[in-house]
Amino acid sequence: MAVIDRETARAMDTADPLAWLRERFVHVHEWIYMDGNSLGRLPARTPAAVAGTVDDWGRRLVTGWHDWIDLPARAGDELAPLLGARPGELLACDSVTVNLYKLAGAALSDRPGAIVFDPDDFPTDRYVLAGLAAQHGRELVAIGDGLPAHTALVCLSHVNYRSGELADMARITAAAHERGALALWDLCHSAGAVPVDLEGAGADLAVGCTYKYLNAGPGAPGFLYVRREHIERLRSPIQGWFGQADQFAMGPEYRPAAGITRFLAGTPPIAGIEAVRAGAADLAEAGLPALRRKSVALTELIVALHDQRLAPLGFTLGTPREPERRGAHVSIRHPDAWRICRALIEHAGVIPDFRGPDSIRLGPAPAYTRFVDVWDAVDRLCSLVADGVHERLGDERSRVT
Amino acid sequence: MAVIDRETARAMDTADPLAWLRERFVHVHEWIYMDGNSLGRLPARTPAAVAGTVDDWGRRLVTGWHDWIDLPARAGDELAPLLGARPGELLACDSVTVNLYKLAGAALSDRPGAIVFDPDDFPTDRYVLAGLAAQHGRELVAIGDGLPAHTALVCLSHVNYRSGELADMARITAAAHERGALALWDLCHSAGAVPVDLEGAGADLAVGCTYKYLNAGPGAPGFLYVRREHIERLRSPIQGWFGQADQFAMGPEYRPAAGITRFLAGTPPIAGIEAVRAGAADLAEAGLPALRRKSVALTELIVALHDQRLAPLGFTLGTPREPERRGAHVSIRHPDAWRICRALIEHAGVIPDFRGPDSIRLGPAPAYTRFVDVWDAVDRLCSLVADGVHERLGDERSRVT
Repeated sequence: MAVIDRETARAMDTADPLAWLRERFVHVHEWIYMDGNSLGRLPARTPAAVAGTVDDWGRRLVTGWHDWIDLPARAGDELAPLLGARPGELLACDSVTVNLYKLAGAALSDRPGAIVFDPDDFPTDRYVLAGLAAQHGRELVAIGDGLPAHTALVCLSHVNYRSGELADMARITAAAHERGALALWDLCHSAGAVPVDLEGAGADLAVGCTYKYLNAGPGAPGFLYVRREHIERLRSPIQGWFGQADQFAMGPEYRPAAGITRFLAGTPPIAGIEAVRAGAADLAEAGLPALRRKSVALTELIVALHDQRLAPLGFTLGTPREPERRGAHVSIRHPDAWRICRALIEHAGVIPDFRGPDSIRLGPAPAYTRFVDVWDAVDRLCSLVADGVHERLGDERSRVT
Repeated sequence: MAVIDRETARAMDTADPLAWLRERFVHVHEWIYMDGNSLGRLPARTPAAVAGTVDDWGRRLVTGWHDWIDLPARAGDELAPLLGARPGELLACDSVTVNLYKLAGAALSDRPGAIVFDPDDFPTDRYVLAGLAAQHGRELVAIGDGLPAHTALVCLSHVNYRSGELADMARITAAAHERGALALWDLCHSAGAVPVDLEGAGADLAVGCTYKYLNAGPGAPGFLYVRREHIERLRSPIQGWFGQADQFAMGPEYRPAAGITRFLAGTPPIAGIEAVRAGAADLAEAGLPALRRKSVALTELIVALHDQRLAPLGFTLGTPREPERRGAHVSIRHPDAWRICRALIEHAGVIPDFRGPDSIRLGPAPAYTRFVDVWDAVDRLCSLVADGVHERLGDERSRVT
C-alpha cells in the first residue's frame, strides 16, 4: 500500500459527503478531539434548545407539564429510526445504570435461570448485574463457548468499550432465545455511530447512553428499549409515579401504565431530554447508513496508519481488522499506553482516552471528525513516541482518565 | 379580628424583610402563581448558570470531567445548611423516586423487620416501598397508633403533600429508633421552605426534590442524605460505576466507595446539578429562619382569609391551624374543588393545584410570593365562587392536574 500522506487525508475530506455535518457542531479550540466515544461535541443547536426549555419553564411554570409529560416517550420515538425500533418502544430517562437495573430486574422477575454477561464489558454493567444476581439468587455466568441450559438473561454490549469489537446482535440474540432467555443489549458505544436494528435482530431489551455519539452532554439522560411484545408482561423493580397507570389519580396501589411509560420511575429531567432531542436531530438528518460509511472509512484509515507508522514503534492493534467486526472506535495497544496518552493530551493537543491496562482509544466521530484530524493525531503520536516525550513524564494517575 | 383588606396585605409587603428576594426570580406575566409547592419559579441566575455549563461542555469536552466528577457531592454540601446536614452526607443525583429506592433498599438489606409508611403520603413513596416490600419479603404496615415490634424502616414525609401537615421529625425518629428501625424522611415538601434539622432530629436517611421550593426546574435531580455514622455500613441496591471505589480502575468486583458517593449510580447530570446549585444559592443567602418566618406569615394570612371569606362560601381548612404543625402550603377543601381549581386557572389567572378528592393547594413560596398575591388569589377565588363561574364548567379531567 502506498504511504498515506496528509494530502491523501485532505482529499478524503474534500470528497466526504458528510462534510457539512461538522459545521453543525461547536469547535472552540485547536485540539484534535478523538474522544467522541466518551463525550460527544456540543451541537450548535443545543445551547438554544436548552435555553428555550429553561425559558419555557420560566414562562409557563407548572402549566408546562401539559407538554413535558410525554417528553420521555416523544424523545424515544425520535431515537427510534437510529436504533431500528418501532414507535412506543423507547424512552429517554434516567441514567444508563438505572435503566439497566430496571430492565435486567424486569427480566429476572419474568423468568428463572442464570444471568450471562461478558467480563470484558463496561464495569457498570457487571456491577449492576452482580447486585441483581445476589438479590434474585441467580448465578452470574461469564459468557463462554455456549450459554448455560437455564438462562434468564443474556446481557452484552453491542460494541465493546475497550476493544471496539462489534457483536453479532442477531446471532447472539437467537442463541439466547434458544435457551429461553431474554437478550438485553448495551448500546452505549454504538448508538448514533453504528447502525442498530433492534427489531430485525429480535432484541428483547436495550439500554444506551446519549452523551457519546448522540452528543447530548455530560450525564445526559440515557434511553431504554423494550420490545413491543414484552411490554405488557414486564415490570420495573422501581415502581415510581411516572410509571403508574392514571398517574394523577394517585391511587393507593401501583398499577403499571399500559405502554412503554411503565418503565419510567420519577419525574423526568426536561432540559436534559431536550438536549437528547437536539443531539439526535442532526444525526437523523444525516442518516445512519451515511454515518456508518464515514465511520468505517475513518477507522480503516487508523488501521492503515497503524500498520504503516505505529506498528514499527511497538504498537499493536486492539480492534478487529475486519470493518464489519468493528464499532466506531479503534484501540491501539502499547506497554506504555498510559504515559503516551498523557503526553498526547498535555504536549500534543490530541485528546484520546486510556483504558487499562494498555489501550489508547481513538474515537473519531463520523459526525464531526475529519480524515485530516485522524492523520494529524497519528502523526503527532508518532513524533511524540519517536522523541520519547512520554518517557519524561511521571507515572502518577489522575482520578479521571 | 378586623377585616383584612388589600391595603393590609400591601403593608405587609412593604414591611417584608425578604422583599428583595422576589427580584432574584423571573416574573413574566400577570398570573398569581400559588404552585411553588409543585414547580418553583425560574431564578434569574439560572439561565446563565445552565448556559455556562453547556458552554463549558463545548469548550472543555471530556476534560471537563476533572471538575464535574465531584459535582453531586459538592452540590450536596451546598444544600447541607438548608437541611441541617453535615458535609459529606448529601448528594444531588437521580430522581426522588430512584433515590428513595436506593436508600430504602439499603435499609432493608441492613436489618430485618417491617416497613412502616403513611398511606396519605405521596404515591411514589408507597409504590416504591410496596415494590421493595415484595422483593425483600417484608410486611408493609400503615402507620397507626404505634410502630410494630419488628420494624426495619419507617418512611414518612416531613410535610404531607396534600394537607401540608408538618410531622415531628425528632419525635418520630426517636420512636423508630426505639424499635430498632431506621427513619427515612421524604423532604420534598419542606426542603427550601421549612427548616430541616436532619442531624439534630437524629434522622438516618432522607430524600427530597429540588424542583419545588429549591427552584431547580422541571425534573431537576433530587437529593439524598445518609447520616455519616451509617454510610460505611449501607449499600445501594443499584451498583453503578459512579458508586465504585477507585472508579477509573474499572476493577472486576463492585466495591462501594468510602464516602457518600457510594450512593451514586450512573453518570450524574451535570447541567441539571448546576441548576440545583443556582436554585439553592439565593435561599442560602436569605437563610431558612427568615424564609420560615415569611412562610408562616403567608400561611397565617391564608388561614385568616379562609375564616373571614372562604368558610362562608362552603370551604373548610384542610391544614392544621397551628403554624408549628404546618409546612409551607395550605389546603382548602370544597366539594366542587376540581371545577373551582379549573376556573381559577382558566378564568382568574390564579395558578394553584388540585389534589383529590377535594383539596385546592395554595402554595405561596416565601422566596417570591407577596402577601398581596395571597390576598388577590383569595379575593378572585371568592368572586368566582360567588358568581358561580365554576358551575358553568364541565367535569372533564385533564391528564395533568
